[in-house]
Parts: sequence; structure tokens; C-alpha cells
Amino acid sequence: MKKDDHSVGLVTPKNIFFAEPPNEFQLESGKKLGPINIRYETYGVLNVDRSNAILLLHAFSGDAHAAGYLSETDKTPGWWDAMVGPGKAFDTDKYFLICSNIIGGCQGSTGPSSINPQTGKPYALSFPLITINDMVLTQNELLNHLGISELFAVAGGSMGGMQALEWSVYFPEKVRSAIILASTARMTAQGIAFNALSRNAIMSDFRWQNGNYYGKEIPARGLAIARMAGHITYLSDEAMHKKFGRRLQSREEYGYDFSNEFEVESYLQYQGDKFVERFDANSYIYISKAMDYFDLGARFGGLNEAFAGTRAKFLVVSYSSDWLYPSYQSKEIVFTLTKNRKDVSYIEINCPYGHDSFLLETDRQSSIISSFLGGIRG
Amino acid sequence: MKKDDHSVGLVTPKNIFFAEPPNEFQLESGKKLGPINIRYETYGVLNVDRSNAILLLHAFSGDAHAAGYLSETDKTPGWWDAMVGPGKAFDTDKYFLICSNIIGGCQGSTGPSSINPQTGKPYALSFPLITINDMVLTQNELLNHLGISELFAVAGGSMGGMQALEWSVYFPEKVRSAIILASTARMTAQGIAFNALSRNAIMSDFRWQNGNYYGKEIPARGLAIARMAGHITYLSDEAMHKKFGRRLQSREEYGYDFSNEFEVESYLQYQGDKFVERFDANSYIYISKAMDYFDLGARFGGLNEAFAGTRAKFLVVSYSSDWLYPSYQSKEIVFTLTKNRKDVSYIEINCPYGHDSFLLETDRQSSIISSFLGGIRG
Repeated sequence: MKKDDHSVGLVTPKNIFFAEPPNEFQLESGKKLGPINIRYETYGVLNVDRSNAILLLHAFSGDAHAAGYLSETDKTPGWWDAMVGPGKAFDTDKYFLICSNIIGGCQGSTGPSSINPQTGKPYALSFPLITINDMVLTQNELLNHLGISELFAVAGGSMGGMQALEWSVYFPEKVRSAIILASTARMTAQGIAFNALSRNAIMSDFRWQNGNYYGKEIPARGLAIARMAGHITYLSDEAMHKKFGRRLQSREEYGYDFSNEFEVESYLQYQGDKFVERFDANSYIYISKAMDYFDLGARFGGLNEAFAGTRAKFLVVSYSSDWLYPSYQSKEIVFTLTKNRKDVSYIEINCPYGHDSFLLETDRQSSIISSFLGGIRG
Repeated sequence: MKKDDHSVGLVTPKNIFFAEPPNEFQLESGKKLGPINIRYETYGVLNVDRSNAILLLHAFSGDAHAAGYLSETDKTPGWWDAMVGPGKAFDTDKYFLICSNIIGGCQGSTGPSSINPQTGKPYALSFPLITINDMVLTQNELLNHLGISELFAVAGGSMGGMQALEWSVYFPEKVRSAIILASTARMTAQGIAFNALSRNAIMSDFRWQNGNYYGKEIPARGLAIARMAGHITYLSDEAMHKKFGRRLQSREEYGYDFSNEFEVESYLQYQGDKFVERFDANSYIYISKAMDYFDLGARFGGLNEAFAGTRAKFLVVSYSSDWLYPSYQSKEIVFTLTKNRKDVSYIEINCPYGHDSFLLETDRQSSIISSFLGGIRG
């Protein structure tokens, strides 16, 4: 744990449990699920009139641990630590921040690796398919548990931005503002294609065994390849060029063999192998499907109609080098909100880091978010 | 075989054999290889002074069969049939066209699936690594065999463009003009990353067996995944949106399962499965490495120095939606040639098809290439 005046310090993850049978949770697919456990963390203090709560929504491989440290010896803080703490963009001196692991995940909340109480074994593929709407509805259960009926803001990047959008249209009366970073109102064919590629890599690993690998050898190669594909899409051509170029890994000349000769190969292998230690392969395929299904306007007959009932103020941020959710996709959100005479601020940040910018470009993001939140009436 | 006045009609592939031991072929890696077989086709007639030969250079998964039909019942013509024939861009009434399968390939030329005469078994990974320069030097053997000492033009797209560039700097005295489509002077980190992803997919398939799958079950899943990754990079975001959007495959509503629900998934699966029937997995990993190694300027101390000795007139064409070899990479070639006071024409074609444009955008390409070739002194 690093000493830092702006750190939230030590945090303790908590859990809620709900949807005990027969009161199972109704999923968007029509399937039912229960009981459900949602892992969450909070930072800062809920004020007396319960009006300062902000829900932070994590991206694909994120978790409930957005900020601070889990123990005195923990070396790495939460995934958005640069943005959450005293005096930071999500200022814990002002706001009560909540972050929970999504349903279908593998970092504390109920997902395919959880034990199915009916069988005593992990769900594996008997786990029902989930959607972004299911994530939001289970987060709403958490808010009910915490006694929070209105959110000062919802905020997230990438798949977190999809959840923030879904919150703003599904619970318009509960959301005062929404911060959408590096995200989209619907998955495009190219996005689905990359997810399909990753699922294929996992499901083609013979260790995957139709999802029943728990307690046995895991489909590590397939999952690592999926993560490699992910990392290629998270970085930009320019970022990769600056970070690696054509530099060789620990050698001066081509080896003319099939080892990881180039630094970029070594990097991808490392990212893939590291990911396998912390992420469940089945969660990967479930979450990727939830993203593929995401089409904010579909339920309403169009994006225009979807936004008609929202009451939130919006902040939409895109990043010039993000080619996974390029700026034109953010602009579609902004254009449609504007057409609906909704209050929306839009900024395209010019930076080379690609899709990962919402995790890296924290300085400029912070001043934008601080000032946006400062303009929301308390 | 379709009736078409502008078809080259029936063609017969031919072969040359060279580098019989002990006169083995010296590869760029330092390794030796022999004997070597190069499969090729020709279209049109070589003129008396042997000055009208154009070498067509194929891309990653291409072959010697650039135009025409292999039999009376053949339904699909060669890969660049729209460009090669009487009155077409590569006009067989004027030019003698040659196209050969690259060394390392699997469509008639010596590659990892060929029988190693020393063992009587396929080379598999005992095949030496090859480079773009090796492709060019073996093509030069073919020209020697045909008695051609000077090429009216070299022309290719993608990896074919890399070979055309290599021809122009390695054999400056032999190349009068070079047509470089949708290509690059060096593989970028992002390009290497995609190739590494594909190699990983193949080599992670347990059927790959360290390359020794010949006569057994082939690594079909891994090779199909590699091809899927390829196809994602060959199409643009816009092309995928237009071609597939979010349309579902043979259904009206989400099925909430892991089948290929979206059309784009089905398309990728189909392309992957079809590819496996015609392409060798080891050839895939060898050819991808040859591309990774490609850095035209490296041998000369820089791209500027590489181009210093070229005598060719250049035509460089890039495509606005090609994100695998984006226009800035073509512009670097053009800029460096211009700095060297070389004769270069450059056109960026505005079209949505992505990298595949050089195979699809044949109308506009044809008029550009015809007029370029018309300006080369006979």
C-alpha cells in the first residue's frame, strides 16, 4: 500500500445476497436465477439525505475494486484509483461512490464459475445468458439494499458506459447525471466480430470441455488468445508503434524461429498469461455476449425513442485514437440526445492511447468530470 | 467456366524445379534449401525482344492462379481475373503476365507441407523460415528459366506489394515499373500483433502437434480462428456495418445461446471453415513470419537509402478505409521516393471495403493501372 494523501486507503469488499428461491431474479432472456450475490465496494460517506451517491460501472475485465487497497501489503490500487479519492474527479470528500462486480463476472458476484446450489457444482454453461440490462437491474438491487433511491451520477467507460446509458434510459427517475466514456449505444458488426473471435479461441481450446473445466485444467491458451485479441483492440496503431515499434525482444537480429521475437509479441503473451490467472474463461464468453446483445434503442424502437424519457444530464467523452468505439459512435449518442433537447456535454480528447485512454488519460478526464459534476445541482 | 470475351480462358499451371543438392538455394536466414519447385501460370504472349513481361505478386493466401479457368467445369476464375485479360488493366493483348506461388506456400510451390527428399516426409517445422527477399529471389529463378532479364512491371497488393517493393530495390536494373497496392514498406507493431495472434491460434490447437499433423487430423479450429482474425482486418468497420450490421442469422430474436446468432459471426465461421480446406496451417505461420520480418529499409540503413538505387517508375495506391495498411504507410513510400527524386504516382482511392479493396475496387483500379502502364516506355 502506497502512502498517498489522495488515496481512499484500505477498503473492505462487501456482499449482498438476494433472489433466494422461490423469489428468483427474472433475467432479460426470460430465464430465472437465484440466489444472487453481488460483490461491491464503497468509498466516501453517504450524506444524510442520501443524495450524493455515484455508481461507478466497470468495463469488461474490471471488478468492484475501483480504488484504494485491499490490505496493508497490497501494492496495486483499484482500477480507477487515479479518478477516485479525496480531491480527485470522483471526490470522496463530496460523493459516496459505489462500485460492484457485474453479474456474470468472476470477481465476487454470481457468474458461471459460482456454485449452483441446486447441483452443488459450478454453473458452467447452465448459467443463463445475461445482458447489460441484467447488470443494471442487479445493481438496482444493491441500491435498494443501501437505501438509495436516486443517483447523483452513473459513470463508466467502455462496457461501463453501456451500463450508464442503460441506467439513464431504464431508470430515468433515478439518474441525475450520466458519464459515458469511450463507449457506444450499440455493438457494431466489427465489435461483434472481435468478440466472436475471442469466444472461438476459448471454445476451441480442448481444455474448455464445453465449459466444464472447473477443478481441472483450465482453457488457458484459448483465454490468453482472447485477451491478446482484446489488447490489440484496446491499443491504437500509433500507441503500439510508440510503445513497441519493430523492436526485438532481448536480441539484436532476427532469430528466424517461432519464438516471440518482437517486443509486441512478448507483451501480448505476457498480458494473455497474466489475465488467465485472474479471469474465468466462461465469464469471458458470457460477458462478451452481453456486449454483443447491447443495442440501447432496440427495446424502444430506436435510439431517439430510447432517450425520450431520460432526465439525466449527460457527459460523453470519446478519444481520438479509440478505434474499438470510435468517436462517431459517441457523436451518434450526442446527436440523438441533442435532437431530444437533452442536456449533453461532449468532448473528444485528442490522445494516442486508443480505447484504453479512459483508464490512462486521467488528468484531462479528471478536470472534465470534476467540472461536469460540479454543475449538477446537489 | 464462364463465357467472357475478356477472359484469358483455360490456363495450365506449370512448374520449374531448381536448387538440386548440392546446389541448394541460399536463403536470407543463412539456411539452405533444395530442391525447390515453383508453380506458375502465364497469360498473354512474350514478345520477341522479351520486353513486355509483368510479374504479378500474390498476397498472403493467394496463389499462382491469377486469371482464367483451370478446367472447362471450373466455376471460379483466378483471384485477379477482373484485372487480367484481353483489354483489361493487365492487358494480355499487350503484356506477358507471370504469376507464381510464393516459396513457403501450399499451392504448388515448395513449402512446409512439401516432402523433404532427405526424409521422405513433409518438412513441417524443419522447413527454414523464409522472407520476402527469398520470395523475390526464387521468382528471379523463374524469370531466368523463362529467359526474361527485364520486367516491364512488377505489381501486387498487400504482401504482393511488399514483394514488388523488394523487387524494385533488390533488382533495380530489372524493374522498369512497380505497382504497389494497399501495402507498406514495413510491418508495424499492430500488424505483427495480428499475425502473432493468428500464429498463437494455430499453434495452440492441440492437433497442430508442433507442426507434425500431416496425414493426421489437421489443426482446423486454430487455422479457422487465424483466418477469422485475418478477415476482420481485411474488412473495414464501415464495410462490416453495411454488409452485416447487427442482423441476426436466420432468426428474429436473440436466442440467448452461444450459437452464431449474428450474421457477421456466421460469415466469419464460414470463411474460416472454407479456408481450412485449401490452406496449410504451417504455410500460414511461415508466411506470416515473412511479413513480420519485412522492413524494406533495414538492410540499407533506412528507407531513403533503400530507394536510392531504384530505377523503376512507381504507382502507389492506397484505400481510404484500409486500416491494416493505412494510407499513411503508402504516403511514407511516396514521400521517400519523392525525396529521392524518383518518378512516383500516388492515388488514394476513397472506398469503404477496407484492405480487401485491391481485390474488389477493380474498376477504378483498372483505369489507373492501364494509364500508368501506358506511360511506361515499351
